[in-house]
Amino acid sequence: MVYERSNIRRMAGYTWGEQPEDAGTCKLNTNENPYPPAPGVATALKGVDAADLRTYPQPTAAPLRARIAEHHKLATENALVTHGGDEALRLAITTFVEPGSPLGYADPSYSLYPVLAAIQNAPVLPAQYSEDWTLPADFAKRANAAGARLTCLVNPHAPSGRLITTDDCGRLASELDGVLLLDEAYADFIDPALGYDSAALIKAHDNLLILRSFSKGYSLAGLRLGYLIGQEALIEPLLTKTRDSYNIDAISQRLGLAALEDQDHATDTWRRVRAERSRLNDELARRGLACPPSQANFLLAQVPLGAKRKAKALYEALKARGILVRHFDTPRLGDSLRISIGTRAQSQRLLNALDDLLDDVSAAR
Amino acid sequence: MVYERSNIRRMAGYTWGEQPEDAGTCKLNTNENPYPPAPGVATALKGVDAADLRTYPQPTAAPLRARIAEHHKLATENALVTHGGDEALRLAITTFVEPGSPLGYADPSYSLYPVLAAIQNAPVLPAQYSEDWTLPADFAKRANAAGARLTCLVNPHAPSGRLITTDDCGRLASELDGVLLLDEAYADFIDPALGYDSAALIKAHDNLLILRSFSKGYSLAGLRLGYLIGQEALIEPLLTKTRDSYNIDAISQRLGLAALEDQDHATDTWRRVRAERSRLNDELARRGLACPPSQANFLLAQVPLGAKRKAKALYEALKARGILVRHFDTPRLGDSLRISIGTRAQSQRLLNALDDLLDDVSAAR
Repeated sequence: MVYERSNIRRMAGYTWGEQPEDAGTCKLNTNENPYPPAPGVATALKGVDAADLRTYPQPTAAPLRARIAEHHKLATENALVTHGGDEALRLAITTFVEPGSPLGYADPSYSLYPVLAAIQNAPVLPAQYSEDWTLPADFAKRANAAGARLTCLVNPHAPSGRLITTDDCGRLASELDGVLLLDEAYADFIDPALGYDSAALIKAHDNLLILRSFSKGYSLAGLRLGYLIGQEALIEPLLTKTRDSYNIDAISQRLGLAALEDQDHATDTWRRVRAERSRLNDELARRGLACPPSQANFLLAQVPLGAKRKAKALYEALKARGILVRHFDTPRLGDSLRISIGTRAQSQRLLNALDDLLDDVSAAR
Repeated sequence: MVYERSNIRRMAGYTWGEQPEDAGTCKLNTNENPYPPAPGVATALKGVDAADLRTYPQPTAAPLRARIAEHHKLATENALVTHGGDEALRLAITTFVEPGSPLGYADPSYSLYPVLAAIQNAPVLPAQYSEDWTLPADFAKRANAAGARLTCLVNPHAPSGRLITTDDCGRLASELDGVLLLDEAYADFIDPALGYDSAALIKAHDNLLILRSFSKGYSLAGLRLGYLIGQEALIEPLLTKTRDSYNIDAISQRLGLAALEDQDHATDTWRRVRAERSRLNDELARRGLACPPSQANFLLAQVPLGAKRKAKALYEALKARGILVRHFDTPRLGDSLRISIGTRAQSQRLLNALDDLLDDVSAAR
């Protein structure tokens, strides 16, 4: 007998990136920060007394919540700590998307969005990113016409890395009838010279939620720690109603605080990732693999039409050499590889392998 | 402007128990194990390298999942690790309960059930526990007539502590048309002499899910770790579709394994809790506070009609003395206090306070 709901039966689940245990793998497939978390995180971890795990954690992760709010020059009521960015997305959909009414987003994007929509039995708005990875001009108009009460936009965009400017985010928030969730999982890697500052928009927009994550920027993917910021009326139902009561464990609360405290360490890793992003972008271009301009910690490398190996074959061949990148077997992305920014040594290992595997292209250069 | 769905706007959230930071509080309000986790948990915690937190955790907590299955003499496919028992309940409701169709449960019970049903916009079956905290004889019949696709029963029952026998669980699973979720958050404290073994029912019942938690039995409430066991067809959609992809952080996976490994430590804490439960039950009865027979790590003490203070006033007076118990201000529970089983010293502190606060009752003895 089948017991699950018919929409659950019909849907396909999320496909997570490969997580090999083998330390020898050159892991450039799930956008982790190549540098370890701040030394203060290790100190905080050593300071945890196992005996304290006997009792429940602070239900709202209050000290971390307050610190996050302060970090963004907001009040505590404007922040909510979540179990990774994924919980933030799920809570937003549970809270704002009525089953049967569409989730707004543009395709291709974080492949979890349509999965979460399917769980909620909500259709998705069939909007597509333009050829240059910008949003179609009528995006907000179409989301409104479809009745979308929540629109999720990952900014910088995944998997292209393209950034929507603060002004354009503000314009979208003004235009949209429903909630705009800016999924800024990769925002720590934006070049500070660009002056991106979406948090400054919160005061003027009662429909703006901003998602941040400790996974990439703070090198804590293993912990599952993220947060949302926005006006209190948006945060409150997630905090008091739709969230699991004790959603953040006691250890994560302490380690998150320690990570946030050492901004120098974090910003130094971001600077190093940006430098390597720029270098890898140029090296890939020299090999005929063009990438859209990325402000994230990955590049979307388009494998040229005339290459000896198509993207999928290249992904397989790299994997056979112990180098993991991400290939999405979809019409729009099938000819590209998403490559996380690693250390300089990791980039070099990748480039050497590409030189070998794409020798026709090299010869044509 | 209000953005949340109308059912979310209307509902009230879960009220969690007070979690004071003050170490001087005698905390008998949220059913924590009074003894620390196994020494192996502290060792495993010391063995965590903060640098390893840089990468994503194993997506399905595979080693812990396999160990849990083995512990119950089941295959890995029969188990799912969850972020506390609360995630297990949420996943079951998301997966099996259609909005508009009722969640089966009997009142009063774990107060999270109706909250999770409200989030799913599902009504609840208005069944009530009998005067002696047994289920009404026609419970399954009524759940079926109402079209309940999922029924949650906490066993031992909360807040009474009353146990449904293995045979009666099997009978209910046979009678129910939908899924039966036995919420065994407190099952570790059942007297082994009773031979309760619901896991043995899984083979014969394709609609049975059993929830377990590390929070109480393994003294790890601070971690958020629980699990579900059942036939693969029930587990699979939760594992691959409705669960957040990386639902268990890397540290919890390791500490859960260590806790499970040291069964001697865990079972020793259970034995000590049972001994103290029996003693406290008798001491409360001697003071006129009768408790239903409890197989959990708490007692539901009924404050006698003629007592100097009613239950709510007693809760307040105990709190003023630094002793926290739980009072539910509802028609059925308003005259009772739910008291977690602590150490012998904690019980004594409670009993001394009760002697003082209930002196009319003492005098009448």
